[in-house]
Amino acid sequence: MSNGRNGPPQGQERRAQPRAASGRWQTAITSVEPNRILVRGFPLDEMVGRLSFAEAAYLLLMGELPTAAIGKMFNAILVSSIDHGVTPPSTLAARTVATSGAPLKDCVAAGVLAFGPHHGGDIETCMRFLDAGLSLVRNGHALQQAAEQLAEDAVRAREIPPGFGHRIHARDPRAGRLLQMALELEVEGEHVRLMRALEQALQARERQFGRPLAINADGAIAAISADLGFAYELGNAVFLISRLPGLIAHAHEERTTEAPMRLITPSEHDYHGAPERRLPETRK
Amino acid sequence: MSNGRNGPPQGQERRAQPRAASGRWQTAITSVEPNRILVRGFPLDEMVGRLSFAEAAYLLLMGELPTAAIGKMFNAILVSSIDHGVTPPSTLAARTVATSGAPLKDCVAAGVLAFGPHHGGDIETCMRFLDAGLSLVRNGHALQQAAEQLAEDAVRAREIPPGFGHRIHARDPRAGRLLQMALELEVEGEHVRLMRALEQALQARERQFGRPLAINADGAIAAISADLGFAYELGNAVFLISRLPGLIAHAHEERTTEAPMRLITPSEHDYHGAPERRLPETRK
Amino acid sequence: MSNGRNGPPQGQERRAQPRAASGRWQTAITSVEPNRILVRGFPLDEMVGRLSFAEAAYLLLMGELPTAAIGKMFNAILVSSIDHGVTPPSTLAARTVATSGAPLKDCVAAGVLAFGPHHGGDIETCMRFLDAGLSLVRNGHALQQAAEQLAEDAVRAREIPPGFGHRIHARDPRAGRLLQMALELEVEGEHVRLMRALEQALQARERQFGRPLAINADGAIAAISADLGFAYELGNAVFLISRLPGLIAHAHEERTTEAPMRLITPSEHDYHGAPERRLPETRK
Amino acid sequence: MSNGRNGPPQGQERRAQPRAASGRWQTAITSVEPNRILVRGFPLDEMVGRLSFAEAAYLLLMGELPTAAIGKMFNAILVSSIDHGVTPPSTLAARTVATSGAPLKDCVAAGVLAFGPHHGGDIETCMRFLDAGLSLVRNGHALQQAAEQLAEDAVRAREIPPGFGHRIHARDPRAGRLLQMALELEVEGEHVRLMRALEQALQARERQFGRPLAINADGAIAAISADLGFAYELGNAVFLISRLPGLIAHAHEERTTEAPMRLITPSEHDYHGAPERRLPETRK
Repeated sequence: MSNGRNGPPQGQERRAQPRAASGRWQTAITSVEPNRILVRGFPLDEMVGRLSFAEAAYLLLMGELPTAAIGKMFNAILVSSIDHGVTPPSTLAARTVATSGAPLKDCVAAGVLAFGPHHGGDIETCMRFLDAGLSLVRNGHALQQAAEQLAEDAVRAREIPPGFGHRIHARDPRAGRLLQMALELEVEGEHVRLMRALEQALQARERQFGRPLAINADGAIAAISADLGFAYELGNAVFLISRLPGLIAHAHEERTTEAPMRLITPSEHDYHGAPERRLPETRK
Repeated sequence: MSNGRNGPPQGQERRAQPRAASGRWQTAITSVEPNRILVRGFPLDEMVGRLSFAEAAYLLLMGELPTAAIGKMFNAILVSSIDHGVTPPSTLAARTVATSGAPLKDCVAAGVLAFGPHHGGDIETCMRFLDAGLSLVRNGHALQQAAEQLAEDAVRAREIPPGFGHRIHARDPRAGRLLQMALELEVEGEHVRLMRALEQALQARERQFGRPLAINADGAIAAISADLGFAYELGNAVFLISRLPGLIAHAHEERTTEAPMRLITPSEHDYHGAPERRLPETRK
Repeated sequence: MSNGRNGPPQGQERRAQPRAASGRWQTAITSVEPNRILVRGFPLDEMVGRLSFAEAAYLLLMGELPTAAIGKMFNAILVSSIDHGVTPPSTLAARTVATSGAPLKDCVAAGVLAFGPHHGGDIETCMRFLDAGLSLVRNGHALQQAAEQLAEDAVRAREIPPGFGHRIHARDPRAGRLLQMALELEVEGEHVRLMRALEQALQARERQFGRPLAINADGAIAAISADLGFAYELGNAVFLISRLPGLIAHAHEERTTEAPMRLITPSEHDYHGAPERRLPETRK
Repeated sequence: MSNGRNGPPQGQERRAQPRAASGRWQTAITSVEPNRILVRGFPLDEMVGRLSFAEAAYLLLMGELPTAAIGKMFNAILVSSIDHGVTPPSTLAARTVATSGAPLKDCVAAGVLAFGPHHGGDIETCMRFLDAGLSLVRNGHALQQAAEQLAEDAVRAREIPPGFGHRIHARDPRAGRLLQMALELEVEGEHVRLMRALEQALQARERQFGRPLAINADGAIAAISADLGFAYELGNAVFLISRLPGLIAHAHEERTTEAPMRLITPSEHDYHGAPERRLPETRK
């Protein structure tokens, strides 16, 4: 596909090849000349103040400006995963590196490395899973049938499908809000619809799984990103952009408020920040 | 200072200490309970769709919501450094790691590691430099006097002050736009004013430096971030958030369009992307 | 298998699970008490001066002391890949990060990230490939038959098997030496024997591949490491230990002898070091 | 100095400069031609089987073969820090990244990033500290006088000098063994002698510090490495090479024996490995 989904499938290893003789090569991202920077063709200084960062990031990744609706949706996606407290491996990795006195960027890089298959990587896995499911639909199944079959397969394999269930949240508050926005902004497509159908099929089988299996934030981001046409690996990249401020905030807090070389006990922390508060009316 | 600027000064190495006995510890960033996530006190699902990603990032880093003007300014800062083509070390590091077939996040982490003193780190250096200059002002010098003295020191040391001059841009188009916005949005303060005064003082000495020394993007971001009250190391963090989509776009382009294990010759590339185009009127 | 080869197969992604409640957990590597450090049960201070670093590394990774022969073999394996000049992606990544003024460890970390599927990762791929081939033997094929079949499969798939051929060396001088030592030290087993048989089978088909396909250093390390009983992922780890001094030497050379922020053109370098020389007789 | 100690002093930030026009550049490390690899001038295949890995690493870093005594010493140094259990930040960072299912090399890279000022970085700090002390000697003080003054300064600053004291070991078993070997192998020089003199001076002031201040492993490595002529930043590099097998062993143990996404409580672990045992007589 033109959107880069034809990248290397998970884990496949292409053979090493002779080093290509270095020659002229091409990029389609940014053109830099003295006093003139064009990002995907748009003058960067003209973008400054006119595009939100999320819209500019979308332009950079997808090559075209988002519509107003997609711009809103992408801002929402990026906000939805901006932080999730101290217990994710990426946050603990960043804080652990910070205890050694390492500079902030080293803490952030270590956090980025902790976005493994079980953490963030689920988005790409879920996007691939949904496309596999949709191939059933293209082969003539109704969406509902496809969802039932995927749910049956999951029960048989005793494996929770990617994008469902959460270790803490029975109903992930981020997922509901994102899917509601996708509906209101009319950006949802077949991936979101399959995700919703699968959620119903799984909940009808909740007893077999022994736990609630609502769509989680990763699942909502995966389905919406797929409907927006993101390449698989860019699905994970979206999560990476989203979580970066969280990694930075935690590494900075660790570096500025904790003793160096402390042993971090993940579960023995207390929240002592601002009490619950609401956004001002002007924000609603 | 309360904003964390009292972090370890550049390069100072605090002595190793006995590992703190692990005990309960505190965080002020995010509270996570089943079905309820509060970021700096605000329900995350309420933030989704109501705050731009840049505003949410500001909240996470600074602890409070930005005003509408600061939200606009912070979006603009993040957009201004979102990409600068293939030649920055961070971009080349990300692309070089990509040639080995490494996953996207590894390319991004390597890129983050290349934000060294000469690349991105300039923002923190410039923030410290401006605070040192402002201490002259607090000791009774006029802003203009302080700027003249800093310029004289630079000439004597034959050292270009941080935040001035660019290897490619005689007039960095990003800097002018950012400073104009800081003025229009009325968020500029003494750091920006000192930066402007210093630019004049340096340009009066252009002959001694043998090259134009206009404020560059790092300098504009540093001065504005300092006026917004960012801690020094968060100045670099702002650049890190800003550039992440660029690192991702380049690593993804390398992974999906180039042969693995190629030798990358930085200067032998051509831009073959979208031709120059303008933002639609609706964006102005 | 007990040696950890039953780790996650390449690219397989296990589903995320609820975070394990933190409780007491166990390690079998090193016991640390005041004034007493036991590595795999041996007092560390007793190991110092009595084991070579390679022998100590083997003990750490495998849990038991190597025999004298295996100790010699493992030293040889680690020496064989200690450096390969400036063009490998890991070396270029380390040097590129160094141009930004980043500290040495950041350069090394970026280099480590460039050990992707095409670079270093080949060792694990080759170990898995050989075990697949040996399963044919266990199913009754003669070693030679198995080799012929693997060669035929490779011709049909137009894919060079892992561990064969090199972008620069028609006959990789490291591979021959390592395999000769494995023979002399009597540590070679079925993996090495299959590798040799496959080399013959491939060379009989050299015309179909259009290039010589001798065993390369990765292939020799993979076959010998498999015969020594290393887990797949530790095969890559062996390469990682081996190449670390090379990454450090290049990052240090870049940091101390080159101008910061230079653009590195991989192929435009010259060697200006010590002229060819021989080891003193006492070393033979 | 010729040994590269004239690298950038800690934390100094050189100004960014225009990107050097890429042209031919030089390396003195390794020459690679078809079927012929020369490391510092020696044929790599000739080194294989004739040099221990530690000797080959010394050659790579220092440019010359070590004497037999220095080869023994360097092997000993590398063995001395090969692992220190689960609590160092580098080990915890590697294990934390492993919980996400990230590949081994990502765990190792994160571990390398945790070699910050408080962990490993102490070696470079101690080397610089000793050279500063020796400048007193060159200015006419006796070694003992210099040590007394450094001890007095430390008491006054209430700061433990780098390379002394350990959070766990009152007498670090690694340090004693290393210094004993340096004496027996006659490789000790003024840095080691100053370190010993300072240890006496500090112990005479133990009451002021309220804790024993014996030389620790970092201090012994720093003093011996300095006497061997290592550049400051290579002092840390030595630690990095030494600890790599430890990082790998812990990441591998985490990946193969623990549930993914577990929360690691550093202090709640038990050692369940091999019971204490002695090296065979043949090793003594």
